[in-house]
Amino acid sequence: MASPTLSNTVRTNSERRQDPGLDRAFHPKAIAIVGVKTSEGKSPPGYTGQMFLRYLQEAKFEGRIYPINPKADTIGGLKAYPTVSAVPEHVDYVIVTVPAAVVPQVLEDCAAAGALDVHVCAAGFGETGEEEGKRLDEVVEGIAQRHGLRMVGPNCLGYHVPASRLMVYGPTDPTPGPVAFLSQSGGHGQMYARQGTAQGISFSKIISYGNALVMDSTDYLDYLADDPETDIICMYIEDVRDGSKLRRLVTELNPRKPIVIWKGGLTPWGARAAATHTGSMAGDKQIWDAFFEQTGAIRVESIDEMGDVTMTLLQLKPSWEGRVAVWGGGGGNTVAAADVCAREGLKVPALTDATTSRLMESMTLVNQILINPLDAGSVFRDPVVLRQALETVAADPNVDIILLHLAAGFRTWFGAEHLASITKSLVDFNRESPSGKPAVMAVRDEGKLADAEEFVSYLRKAGMTAYFSLPRAARALSKFSAYHRFRQERGPAGR
Amino acid sequence: MASPTLSNTVRTNSERRQDPGLDRAFHPKAIAIVGVKTSEGKSPPGYTGQMFLRYLQEAKFEGRIYPINPKADTIGGLKAYPTVSAVPEHVDYVIVTVPAAVVPQVLEDCAAAGALDVHVCAAGFGETGEEEGKRLDEVVEGIAQRHGLRMVGPNCLGYHVPASRLMVYGPTDPTPGPVAFLSQSGGHGQMYARQGTAQGISFSKIISYGNALVMDSTDYLDYLADDPETDIICMYIEDVRDGSKLRRLVTELNPRKPIVIWKGGLTPWGARAAATHTGSMAGDKQIWDAFFEQTGAIRVESIDEMGDVTMTLLQLKPSWEGRVAVWGGGGGNTVAAADVCAREGLKVPALTDATTSRLMESMTLVNQILINPLDAGSVFRDPVVLRQALETVAADPNVDIILLHLAAGFRTWFGAEHLASITKSLVDFNRESPSGKPAVMAVRDEGKLADAEEFVSYLRKAGMTAYFSLPRAARALSKFSAYHRFRQERGPAGR
Repeated sequence: MASPTLSNTVRTNSERRQDPGLDRAFHPKAIAIVGVKTSEGKSPPGYTGQMFLRYLQEAKFEGRIYPINPKADTIGGLKAYPTVSAVPEHVDYVIVTVPAAVVPQVLEDCAAAGALDVHVCAAGFGETGEEEGKRLDEVVEGIAQRHGLRMVGPNCLGYHVPASRLMVYGPTDPTPGPVAFLSQSGGHGQMYARQGTAQGISFSKIISYGNALVMDSTDYLDYLADDPETDIICMYIEDVRDGSKLRRLVTELNPRKPIVIWKGGLTPWGARAAATHTGSMAGDKQIWDAFFEQTGAIRVESIDEMGDVTMTLLQLKPSWEGRVAVWGGGGGNTVAAADVCAREGLKVPALTDATTSRLMESMTLVNQILINPLDAGSVFRDPVVLRQALETVAADPNVDIILLHLAAGFRTWFGAEHLASITKSLVDFNRESPSGKPAVMAVRDEGKLADAEEFVSYLRKAGMTAYFSLPRAARALSKFSAYHRFRQERGPAGR
Repeated sequence: MASPTLSNTVRTNSERRQDPGLDRAFHPKAIAIVGVKTSEGKSPPGYTGQMFLRYLQEAKFEGRIYPINPKADTIGGLKAYPTVSAVPEHVDYVIVTVPAAVVPQVLEDCAAAGALDVHVCAAGFGETGEEEGKRLDEVVEGIAQRHGLRMVGPNCLGYHVPASRLMVYGPTDPTPGPVAFLSQSGGHGQMYARQGTAQGISFSKIISYGNALVMDSTDYLDYLADDPETDIICMYIEDVRDGSKLRRLVTELNPRKPIVIWKGGLTPWGARAAATHTGSMAGDKQIWDAFFEQTGAIRVESIDEMGDVTMTLLQLKPSWEGRVAVWGGGGGNTVAAADVCAREGLKVPALTDATTSRLMESMTLVNQILINPLDAGSVFRDPVVLRQALETVAADPNVDIILLHLAAGFRTWFGAEHLASITKSLVDFNRESPSGKPAVMAVRDEGKLADAEEFVSYLRKAGMTAYFSLPRAARALSKFSAYHRFRQERGPAGR
């Protein structure tokens, strides 16, 4: 299956490579939804035209929406049209929700109307592994090639662009932001759109592209390279048609726009699942190991991890040594924290004697451990002592990042007023400290997940960078540091 | 520093090796608490006599409690005594909460009174790395050796035995159970006592033994070997005095009482933290790798993981192939689930054609994937269809365990009545299925931790084995299967 990649020609860095068509699809003035039924009825499995229409209306999409249904006059309060070509204006984006077998004739109609940006939602193509699916793949590819359709899909959720209220993934935060997500899984796209909000992650574009029959991740990377709305690019990939193009683009882009990649299907059973999910040939683990090694792209293995790393990139100033001072937790927890940090690739160096002496001067320390990790929970009893201690540790030349480690229960132990003053002390330190070194928080749930969730949420609202659990914090900080180290070593323009 | 291990003589398996003294300490009729102040006042850092007294009283300890304080007549409604030797009956267990420097004279008093089971709470011994601490170690060891004191500690929380209401770790479930925990960290001991309850884990004994100056983990293993109250032994170790004794005991015991070990301090920074925590020489990673390889003990790296594995051992019948059918999650999540299971060492084999055909007969499946993982969420809409599907998958010769994978949100999607009927279908399957293969649940939090917590709690109350997250479930099931595989291969009596 040859792929008609639409932006495949070689250009220099300085040229603007964005496909103007894609730009219109991401910021559409007119959208058609093909296959909307007149009543919601009992919703069948999968995504329906009614759902896309409702979500667009709920998101207060400001352009025109044209429901396409030859048997209806109006749907959802909007005039319906029998075909895309019957719509009285140019359609910038077509969402096709009909079953796979009907897709070819709809694509022909889109082409006839000059509507080149088409999202095909249905599954039932090559990923089924059956003859009929493979035949449909060939037919659809042929139509797309003949007419230059920028078809996204099939078997996906298409585009989600908060800035233009093109929001069809269900209720999500409409705030536009600097993070793009290219996802071969619609579910992961939805999930990141929803989860990201709590981590302060807002999106420029989320692109769920499914089977990648026509438009592939590399085509979208081409666009995002020059997208002024995008600073960080996240990807969930099961496979890619043009691996060398992906390597070239990521190598070039990653130093100026960090690229965070979750590669699915790298185990034998994962690969088999990917084949039935998007028809992907998920590929060889060694090849992908080399890819990450060469490009410096940040490798993650879940949406949670993607969010943790992205939040860190967004919120912390560049730092590459990965030397943390871990603070809090109690005796056994300091051992665990040091082990976890070491396994994740962070360094937990001993503080200098000068730092330890200064810490001992500024507080009453009984049975406290002041090497690193520091088991000195008593500083959290006084915001002034805490601030002094933070400055002392931040002044240590062996430390880059202060990683505070508190139990979920801390939120309620000393009352709301004390919590607020401690939190203010932390936020003020991050804002004002001459060291410029950040203090971030890892919350220990201790089996109380709801409490941990509330504490993390409280800290984030106050402006702290906060993680669920020390292992998640350590992993994110390690990958964050490794990214900046790679960039530092190879130079901002790549190799 | 030679260790006066008290149960070091070699005996045959059939001999009862339990130290009768220890048995009395675990089931005491009289406890003395040395160093209880008359008023609570502002509590200083660390654990105080008042705290131990209050916890014992709150736990409704049924024996006699003797507060020891030469300056008081009564404390907490109890008559106080100036010394342990002044107590008018034999004291089975003494909790010593005085500062390190005063400990030697208290130990001499205990010895004079014939009270040989003594818990020394204070820190400030060898773990400080200072001369005074090391000198105190020698003095204390000398006293213990001369008088045969079974001293636990210093720098620990001592014994927690729900069956005898010897409960001094704070509010915890008083239900006795078959799990023992030997922990070199008091914090970890407390944490497991508290967290275990939610996982259906109840304890025979928790032993926080800190610096292990006299009594070490191997002494307690000797006791637990023949303890009829203990079926599963969990351990948190920073170091051990007699490594070869540990290896011998674990090799012998593990086949009949599974031993789950968290070894702390195996990274350089973790080892440094362990040295300041309990004065441990945490040891070489390779030595411990070989230890686990040889003994077949189950290796974990957190209290969460210890709990997950223990819960699995308690609730599932032995199974060693580790072949799971993963059910649910959506397309992208099936890829992730297969990758996670594969990385954790589980097998996700394809179901037989016969299974797939039978599944397709029994339900309407549109856009559902029926290889493995199965993306067929529609079965959760009907408890009867679900039950049929479970039986069909359980009948597949390639499957040992069915791992259901649902989002936290499932709990509320279809209403309470539907949730109850689906849950009943699962519980009935586990109780009645002729296959004897279990269906367990992994809940996906999707960024909503409180919801996940409620769902997991609901499922556990209904009698399901339920995990937070698929990675935690996969890890626990893999270690559970590996344990039974080891036992199967080496035979129940070890090598």
